[in-house]
Amino acid sequence: MRVKVKQIKSGGEKNAFLGKEVTVKGWIRTVRNQKTFSFVELNDGSSLTSLQIVVDQKLPNYAELISDLNTGASIAATGKIVEGVDKKQLEMHADSLEIIGKCDPETYPLQKKRHSFEFLRTIAHLRPRTNTLGAVARIRNALAYATHQFFQDRGFLYVHTPIITTSDCEGAGQLFQVTTLNVDNLPKTKEGKIDYSKDFFQKPAYLTVSGQLEGEIYASAVSDIYTFGPTFRAENSNTARHLAEFWMIEPEMAFADINDNMDNVEAYLKFVFQYVLDNCREDMLFFNKYISPGVLDTLQKIVGTPFERASYTYAVRILEKSGENFQFPIKWGMDLQSEHERYLVEKFFDKPVIITDYPKDIKAFYMKENNDGKTVAAMDVLVPKVGELVGGSQREDRLDILEEKLERQGLPKDNYWWYLELRKYGSIPHAGYGVGFERLIRFVTGMENIRDVIPFPRYPGSAEF
Amino acid sequence: MRVKVKQIKSGGEKNAFLGKEVTVKGWIRTVRNQKTFSFVELNDGSSLTSLQIVVDQKLPNYAELISDLNTGASIAATGKIVEGVDKKQLEMHADSLEIIGKCDPETYPLQKKRHSFEFLRTIAHLRPRTNTLGAVARIRNALAYATHQFFQDRGFLYVHTPIITTSDCEGAGQLFQVTTLNVDNLPKTKEGKIDYSKDFFQKPAYLTVSGQLEGEIYASAVSDIYTFGPTFRAENSNTARHLAEFWMIEPEMAFADINDNMDNVEAYLKFVFQYVLDNCREDMLFFNKYISPGVLDTLQKIVGTPFERASYTYAVRILEKSGENFQFPIKWGMDLQSEHERYLVEKFFDKPVIITDYPKDIKAFYMKENNDGKTVAAMDVLVPKVGELVGGSQREDRLDILEEKLERQGLPKDNYWWYLELRKYGSIPHAGYGVGFERLIRFVTGMENIRDVIPFPRYPGSAEF
Repeated sequence: MRVKVKQIKSGGEKNAFLGKEVTVKGWIRTVRNQKTFSFVELNDGSSLTSLQIVVDQKLPNYAELISDLNTGASIAATGKIVEGVDKKQLEMHADSLEIIGKCDPETYPLQKKRHSFEFLRTIAHLRPRTNTLGAVARIRNALAYATHQFFQDRGFLYVHTPIITTSDCEGAGQLFQVTTLNVDNLPKTKEGKIDYSKDFFQKPAYLTVSGQLEGEIYASAVSDIYTFGPTFRAENSNTARHLAEFWMIEPEMAFADINDNMDNVEAYLKFVFQYVLDNCREDMLFFNKYISPGVLDTLQKIVGTPFERASYTYAVRILEKSGENFQFPIKWGMDLQSEHERYLVEKFFDKPVIITDYPKDIKAFYMKENNDGKTVAAMDVLVPKVGELVGGSQREDRLDILEEKLERQGLPKDNYWWYLELRKYGSIPHAGYGVGFERLIRFVTGMENIRDVIPFPRYPGSAEF
Repeated sequence: MRVKVKQIKSGGEKNAFLGKEVTVKGWIRTVRNQKTFSFVELNDGSSLTSLQIVVDQKLPNYAELISDLNTGASIAATGKIVEGVDKKQLEMHADSLEIIGKCDPETYPLQKKRHSFEFLRTIAHLRPRTNTLGAVARIRNALAYATHQFFQDRGFLYVHTPIITTSDCEGAGQLFQVTTLNVDNLPKTKEGKIDYSKDFFQKPAYLTVSGQLEGEIYASAVSDIYTFGPTFRAENSNTARHLAEFWMIEPEMAFADINDNMDNVEAYLKFVFQYVLDNCREDMLFFNKYISPGVLDTLQKIVGTPFERASYTYAVRILEKSGENFQFPIKWGMDLQSEHERYLVEKFFDKPVIITDYPKDIKAFYMKENNDGKTVAAMDVLVPKVGELVGGSQREDRLDILEEKLERQGLPKDNYWWYLELRKYGSIPHAGYGVGFERLIRFVTGMENIRDVIPFPRYPGSAEF
């Protein structure tokens, strides 16, 4: 019977597998040859730690084996699970061992030494075999599943909003165009323009920047929904914080205001952090030790602390009185810069804080205008180190005001006919937010570059693999 | 306290809410005015059935209310939950009722009468408010969550494979091109060709048709994975069975052969069908009654029946001896047509059947060649009514044979350098399959047109909403 390393390891000393004969399959991480034994570390990706296999040189096929027992080779081993000499770890005494796929140690790109993350990106087909990228994969998986659990437990429906779209959520941001036209020989109209009637969708189409507007459609029918899918930005941003393709989680709640929104996002973040603490302890200890010391403590603290809530206006007052020498001196009406956010969350409040009610001129058209006529019911969740982790708002549910805002921002009303009709037929107060999934993983793991928390990052000049 | 209709309905007679005062919020489906009462059916999307609210005309604001109590309006009602006259259904006696968002009955596109699905597609922003599309949304949600549960419970990691790609899984199928070039004024090289160095990814990029190849990368590091994301086909197919944008589930298992693959897909399908039977009974009764009589029975039967397994060669023999007058007479070497698949699954076996070991010339390059030199370890799962529901294979894990096959199919080896390296460094026997998610929903619900089982369908000429 094949068992995974995680199953063997998880039981500790009173392990169900202790003394039992089992088979394990995986890839060799390291080999140490002693006088009469070889020690082989086998990893199958189920856990960070490998299983030590003691290979007795008296095994009948040992002579053939030895030259192929190399880092990277895939093997199957059968033997008894016993306590190691230090009694802390279980190991296997192999009765048989088979090489499944050889690995030439001379050319294998993953050597025992530590590789830079930059280098690992060039071998994205092999990097999940490293400790760090393997751990990222498990944390990413856990955060995704925890996300589904959180919303499903609360009766939210998972909705797949479209990827290809002819409308653009915020009327802002650069888009990827999607076409089946032969760009080497574009069809033209009599007027010499591109003949989009020949394109697949018979008009220009783009990759979505957000599923929010379509999410609002479903919230306006089934009350509470969430999306979880890829979104795209074509900005030429070559930074550690931007991806051209990334995953977003966008809940939308009917009959909900900005306070319900804040309650939900706080509960959501605490739930997924607690899930990782409960289910990915070994990986988190790894990140805490080798990648971002203190990250475990930060998560634990957040889970146990009520988030602070403060209005933008109050936050600006705090910043003005801070005595800090900001690069961008703050003034009411300006968007908060990263330095401001970090001062608020790290120095002033020293805990996550939700900033609400931003000036309407710096926020998107769909946010609900407050009664003061100057602000909108927007919210940003700020956390230590990364700053803004989540953005959201109550949505404008009044038809006349929404039409005015579209006009004010120069957006064509015709493009939003269906969005406006949601306010015409049984309009509801509703609210939602967007979580950049990679930003969330980056926060949880403490990984520095966002390109290392997604399996195959897309950024300017790079869509390999 | 706001409760959802599903919570009230789910308890039956011994309901926790019976005799309690609660608040419900949702949209009016119908209003019937009697002499001294109005009966309002409120639906909030949490369940198929609505809650009947008895509105006494003695309510202080009744006179104002009455003209706005229209189908489509959003309301909040507070009152006691009591047994209806027939004692079968619970209803609410309203103490107060508030119109939240009005709905003009003259212009509201969703009238009481039955609308065609074609018409409803033109109002995709309102159609989830109908019985059928609401039920589809709940079934779709349940199948998605059940999918995650199935794989998570078995230690599979959820992997997000890329949407934008420069490699194409099967070397076949029409692609959507993704670009940030200004198509009205394309940059050109000295030779007059399009200067892709100016494009976002500095080379032509496309929307993925499958995450399989990248899934194999992760299986070759962490053993068992699954993907669940959007995929794209630019074929100009205007049928009830094709979408340009659809979601796929693609598990990939390390140290697994075609038999493990068959075991897994059978367990997967039974798990998700059972989940829907257990969790979506009301919606399934609806589909069984109004959309596809017998669909409930079909699911129940499948869950309790071992799938048949038959080789392609055996299947061809059955078809040859069937005495049926097929439009396409079958011969070894041909791909099975829909009529053949339906004969096998509906007439001959009368249960789901997995056909394996297809002729290598009609299958993709990555499938493992069998020892007979003529067939590959492919598998298709056939089910009643829809035919092929899932396709999969054991993958070719021998470097030399894979290189040969690429060459034979005229695919450029350089494009697959990383895919080939998986066979060079610790290669493993592995297998996987792909489930078209919309096809799965179509099968479960019995909905005829695939455009009605995805929130916002994309097909030739249409990317609205």
